Amino acid sequence: MNTINYQFQLASRPQGSVKASDFNYVAEQLHDLQEDEILIKNLYISLDPAMRGWMNESKNSYMPPVAIGEVMRALAVGQVVASKNARFAAGEHVSGLLGMQEYAYSDGKGISKVDARLAPLPLYLSTLGMPGMTAYFGLLEVGQPREGNTVVVSGAAGAVGTIVGQIAKIKGAGAVGIAGGADKCRYLIEQLGFDAAIDYKTEDVSTALRQHCPDGIDVYFDNVGGDILDAALAQLAFGARVVICGAISQYNNTTPIKGPSNYLNLMVKRATMKGVMVSDYYPRAMEAARDMGGWISSGKLKSREDIVEGLEKFPEAFQKLFTGENNGKLILKVMQS
Amino acid sequence: MNTINYQFQLASRPQGSVKASDFNYVAEQLHDLQEDEILIKNLYISLDPAMRGWMNESKNSYMPPVAIGEVMRALAVGQVVASKNARFAAGEHVSGLLGMQEYAYSDGKGISKVDARLAPLPLYLSTLGMPGMTAYFGLLEVGQPREGNTVVVSGAAGAVGTIVGQIAKIKGAGAVGIAGGADKCRYLIEQLGFDAAIDYKTEDVSTALRQHCPDGIDVYFDNVGGDILDAALAQLAFGARVVICGAISQYNNTTPIKGPSNYLNLMVKRATMKGVMVSDYYPRAMEAARDMGGWISSGKLKSREDIVEGLEKFPEAFQKLFTGENNGKLILKVMQS
Repeated sequence: MNTINYQFQLASRPQGSVKASDFNYVAEQLHDLQEDEILIKNLYISLDPAMRGWMNESKNSYMPPVAIGEVMRALAVGQVVASKNARFAAGEHVSGLLGMQEYAYSDGKGISKVDARLAPLPLYLSTLGMPGMTAYFGLLEVGQPREGNTVVVSGAAGAVGTIVGQIAKIKGAGAVGIAGGADKCRYLIEQLGFDAAIDYKTEDVSTALRQHCPDGIDVYFDNVGGDILDAALAQLAFGARVVICGAISQYNNTTPIKGPSNYLNLMVKRATMKGVMVSDYYPRAMEAARDMGGWISSGKLKSREDIVEGLEKFPEAFQKLFTGENNGKLILKVMQS
Repeated sequence: MNTINYQFQLASRPQGSVKASDFNYVAEQLHDLQEDEILIKNLYISLDPAMRGWMNESKNSYMPPVAIGEVMRALAVGQVVASKNARFAAGEHVSGLLGMQEYAYSDGKGISKVDARLAPLPLYLSTLGMPGMTAYFGLLEVGQPREGNTVVVSGAAGAVGTIVGQIAKIKGAGAVGIAGGADKCRYLIEQLGFDAAIDYKTEDVSTALRQHCPDGIDVYFDNVGGDILDAALAQLAFGARVVICGAISQYNNTTPIKGPSNYLNLMVKRATMKGVMVSDYYPRAMEAARDMGGWISSGKLKSREDIVEGLEKFPEAFQKLFTGENNGKLILKVMQS
């Protein structure tokens, strides 16, 4: 076994977009396991928009920021290579916040076992993982779509958005996706069964929303913030639910986040704006996994992963989330070093 | 009886702050009543922030805009001077959208009778009228304060704000008001029983909110929007309710409304943002009137009206709402012409 662990440590707090120089790529010596410790070889590491927030020095967040010098926080799926913990045996697959590194030590807290025979491992970072649960509970619990409702989702070709639209359809609602580029829009309609897709790079989103949602938007699931959130707020139906999941258009801002100028329409349309935090639903994870697993098996729910090979690609691959270059859930595959 | 009706007609859509030249002050001849019509002499006319919105050409509002050449829309209390409608007799007092004029014709639709023996007439435009109901239902139904909660209200010395804070106290919550000027702040604490008041003209609102709400804001009732809304969003408690009632800091904007930059804190704090539209609660008006009437009688709820004499003062008096010069509910008293 290799005795070197390659890892990305946060070197400085990024200003605007993340640069390679915001990290130190470090080779550390692996050490012997202590009592209760396990050593995990990371196989797939998730690249999520939320990571951009973790790099900021923020008092008002749901998680403490990653400290300067600390390994960059990231969700991953890996395999136990050595264990002094009774709960875990070498060879088992696990997932958790294992960090942007080749190997991770853990005392087992916050680490779940995953079954490589039930689903391909990357799926535990997408539909059967955090993005899937975010979509499931955010749409069904916060958005509460009813049959015949019109559900609009932004960032529709992303990890969460693709699932939101598909669950909306499964539940008998109409699904309209907002995404960047003709290929993505075609994919949403032809492969995932969305009723309509709006290409924000070439279409006027406000006009397109009026066209595709003539009776207004009943549930708007927002992953992007900014002007697209404003366009959706202007087209809400009476009693609409606005689910705030993220604001990827704003995460690299060096100026304050653009707040939704049309928020007063919440009042006019008796609408509600509420966030979804996936961690609130962890106790109900089995519920989501059962439904989603069933839908995947029956072909009703499709998953797409965009896998970039090589841990060392992290800084540049991460940028694809913000330029919109990724197709589906963006994941790093850690190669054998 | 006078046969001339003085009225303010909207002459042009105001750009920014309202100017006298945005209206034509017109003398019209009164005409004979038609079947079912009543003629009302306006006694008190309400000056409300919402009127600023009615002057705009807006597609996305809860009411059609006032048309150019039309009498400016306004709530008022008046006395029936002549009636060909079986429901109303001369001498009775009524309230409704009677317009910015000395006399109003009506077919009786949307007009309520009010009892001048139960309460002074201006009270039907304040605590026992639209602002009172907005405060009552906005706080209790949308804000849902619980005993021991911290309620913060902006525009606290205004018609709605004064009532929100007092009802919060009646319901066992703490009340913190944000208002402009030391006199208003003193009034909130000494006369209305608020626990604290923040003078946004001399204090840093964010710092003061942290000081007065160390455990966070459970209910934030917003009348002003802009930077104060952002400061409140940054200090929300877990599970907070944000009640959007108005955005008076933004109504005179010639640029787009400033959206709340800190709206993502709704997600972090699992908070909800929802508007209150008083018209939704009209069917339950008696409920509010009964409670509020009881609280007024027992001295628990105090009302303050700022009465400006003279219909012709409308354009300049209206500006007091935006400069914050008014103390309590701003009302025009229509003098005998």
